[in-house]
Amino acid sequence: MNAHIITIGDEILIGQIIDTNSAFISKELIKIGIEVTKIVSIGDSKKAILSSLKDSQNNCDIAIITGGLGPTNDDITKDSFCEFFDDELVHNPEILRHIEKLFKKFVDNPINDLNRNQAFLPSKAKLIPNLYGTAAGMSIKAENTLFISLPGVPYEMKSMVTDFIIPQIQKDFKCPVIITKTLITYGKGESYIAKKLKDFESNIPTNFKLAYLPNLGRVRLRLLGKGNQKSILEEKMDDLISHLYKILGNIIIGYETLNPIESEIGKKLIKSNQTLSLAESLTGGMLASRFASFAGASKYFKGCVVAYSSLIKKNILCVKPETIKKYSVVSSNVANEMAIEIKKKMNTDYAISTTGNAGPSKGDSNQPIGKIFISIATPHDVKSFEFNFGKNREKNINKTVNKALELLFSELLTRD
Amino acid sequence: MNAHIITIGDEILIGQIIDTNSAFISKELIKIGIEVTKIVSIGDSKKAILSSLKDSQNNCDIAIITGGLGPTNDDITKDSFCEFFDDELVHNPEILRHIEKLFKKFVDNPINDLNRNQAFLPSKAKLIPNLYGTAAGMSIKAENTLFISLPGVPYEMKSMVTDFIIPQIQKDFKCPVIITKTLITYGKGESYIAKKLKDFESNIPTNFKLAYLPNLGRVRLRLLGKGNQKSILEEKMDDLISHLYKILGNIIIGYETLNPIESEIGKKLIKSNQTLSLAESLTGGMLASRFASFAGASKYFKGCVVAYSSLIKKNILCVKPETIKKYSVVSSNVANEMAIEIKKKMNTDYAISTTGNAGPSKGDSNQPIGKIFISIATPHDVKSFEFNFGKNREKNINKTVNKALELLFSELLTRD
Repeated sequence: MNAHIITIGDEILIGQIIDTNSAFISKELIKIGIEVTKIVSIGDSKKAILSSLKDSQNNCDIAIITGGLGPTNDDITKDSFCEFFDDELVHNPEILRHIEKLFKKFVDNPINDLNRNQAFLPSKAKLIPNLYGTAAGMSIKAENTLFISLPGVPYEMKSMVTDFIIPQIQKDFKCPVIITKTLITYGKGESYIAKKLKDFESNIPTNFKLAYLPNLGRVRLRLLGKGNQKSILEEKMDDLISHLYKILGNIIIGYETLNPIESEIGKKLIKSNQTLSLAESLTGGMLASRFASFAGASKYFKGCVVAYSSLIKKNILCVKPETIKKYSVVSSNVANEMAIEIKKKMNTDYAISTTGNAGPSKGDSNQPIGKIFISIATPHDVKSFEFNFGKNREKNINKTVNKALELLFSELLTRD
Repeated sequence: MNAHIITIGDEILIGQIIDTNSAFISKELIKIGIEVTKIVSIGDSKKAILSSLKDSQNNCDIAIITGGLGPTNDDITKDSFCEFFDDELVHNPEILRHIEKLFKKFVDNPINDLNRNQAFLPSKAKLIPNLYGTAAGMSIKAENTLFISLPGVPYEMKSMVTDFIIPQIQKDFKCPVIITKTLITYGKGESYIAKKLKDFESNIPTNFKLAYLPNLGRVRLRLLGKGNQKSILEEKMDDLISHLYKILGNIIIGYETLNPIESEIGKKLIKSNQTLSLAESLTGGMLASRFASFAGASKYFKGCVVAYSSLIKKNILCVKPETIKKYSVVSSNVANEMAIEIKKKMNTDYAISTTGNAGPSKGDSNQPIGKIFISIATPHDVKSFEFNFGKNREKNINKTVNKALELLFSELLTRD
């Protein structure tokens, strides 16, 4: 079982937006055993759409197309479908009723003929409802490929995928099982690891695949296994992983899950009925927003103080002026005091604090750009960690956020 | 002049990483007049690579391929190039010297045969140096297409594009000029705007293109013009923009510059030597992180309290318990008290507060999901605004962030 994803829209091709839809769809598909073998982004051009549909027909079981379903002239997915499938548009009263309902509730101008046009679908197409917008989705089965067309607006597309497409595919297709596991290694290069894994790789079962993902001082090793029975696959995966631990032992620093690490942290804290607060300086709210983006976060995430200035570190986070004077605002001492105080103030079990110079200018302290401290306060103690991530502001902030999440996650793992 | 981008790597197809390389490359290319007409992501498979190279040959002037150049078995771009261009690998001593230099400086294990293999290139290929890594880039001209292969690691790829590829293309090709301008409208749907712009669209010059980009209550209108002379294009663009202002006047709220609205807010506050603080509930730090991501933010952005629980709203933001009891925690009264208190506590000129139910569950209040209040405290007063964005959590949070930024920006505009 394989799928293609086709995203339509000039905005992707000129780099105005980054295509995040494809990664979402890929993740949802792989969970139910469907591999994406190609992702294509094309412009709002009928020629390009037709050529992509042709490329997908018979080369994949499912082709998911996003974008080009709006009411305006540059939205040409339905026309292209009609031409490709030799079909014509017919009126669908169910869609019109839905559009009328949405307009009544949310829009203060009257419905016009362009909106009414959105209530037409190719006659061979099956409707996929869009609860949050006026652009209906549709599916057409042609030869060996199921074509599914969805709007490009992310929150509309996402709910259609999880609420309608995935359950439908699971009902209609017999999907295999795919499982993946990613190990994170630290400190050695790809070539060093590959050399060590030479025998391992030549003995790997044919339904498993090993990939190397190097970036910024870490090499992640991803194992992907495909089969029909989950339990057998998982047993083999455990085998392979423990084999990898034997060979690489000391350079493996942990797992990466397909769920972001912050949601794994959340699960662990909810399970143990514990809570978290944050005191952020250079990360400026980014850590908080990572937690807050998950439904149910309020069960364990109590809140955060973003202390961008030294004055607020002193006044709200009660960092002692003499600590700042003696060690500078970028120091393990300040990070520790921030973590301890926010944990106390918000009455939580854990707390994370960050302080550092993201650059490009030096800010309140005289510490070099890229010097960063993260503290983790636990029910028992507080630990501080020092890093130097270099001169790039964006990289400094993002690496600090990721590092802080990893540190808390490791802390929670040690108590398991 | 057009280009294809081909990104190689299973990690994109399983949604493990989001492809941000393509957007970067597209943006750099369009700056020098080259339109990307297709972006393709494929796995680490020779068959898929060959099929993509074939699809690009003669269908684009330039094909930029990223990924698959590492030292391990799953890196097969060079092998695929040799097969496609009927070529063989030859040793390149310049690359080996560079790899040896990098290892001496950064790596504590000795160079091995896998690294030495990286010093081979197809004989027909021209070397593109990679200053930050061991994977060299290469280019091969075949028939009417220039194929360029780069590593997938973002910071290595980026410097190769800006330092080598772009200057080389500008030297070798006669590129046209492409300019774009994006207007932001608020409050009306795509169909309403399209109806108003019917005549405008039918009279638009053939070298210009209008696109509608709807998202979260705003429709952005992008004009893209292509030609040979920048001054003529810019004059026509100004014409079209002033025409759009005449037709849509009151719903246009500004340009989308390369700078997002939060950086425009920052500029205004820095200019007037004023400051900002935030009290966030449902937006959970997302507003703060939007400001903090810009260099120099600490000049005006003092800090933020994320109060995810009612208790913290009471204890740290001093919201009166009787206000919460009487009006519920999702109310204009609570939003106002939050904004007033944070402004006082952080001693700033402006403050924004957010409170509401993002969903999916009702949380601390009995207000319906999607009901949201934003308050803006100014040096003179505090104003609260009520919204109802619907039932989707992600949409509720993102719309609230965008709306809050717009409200503060409008406030700052009125005093100009």
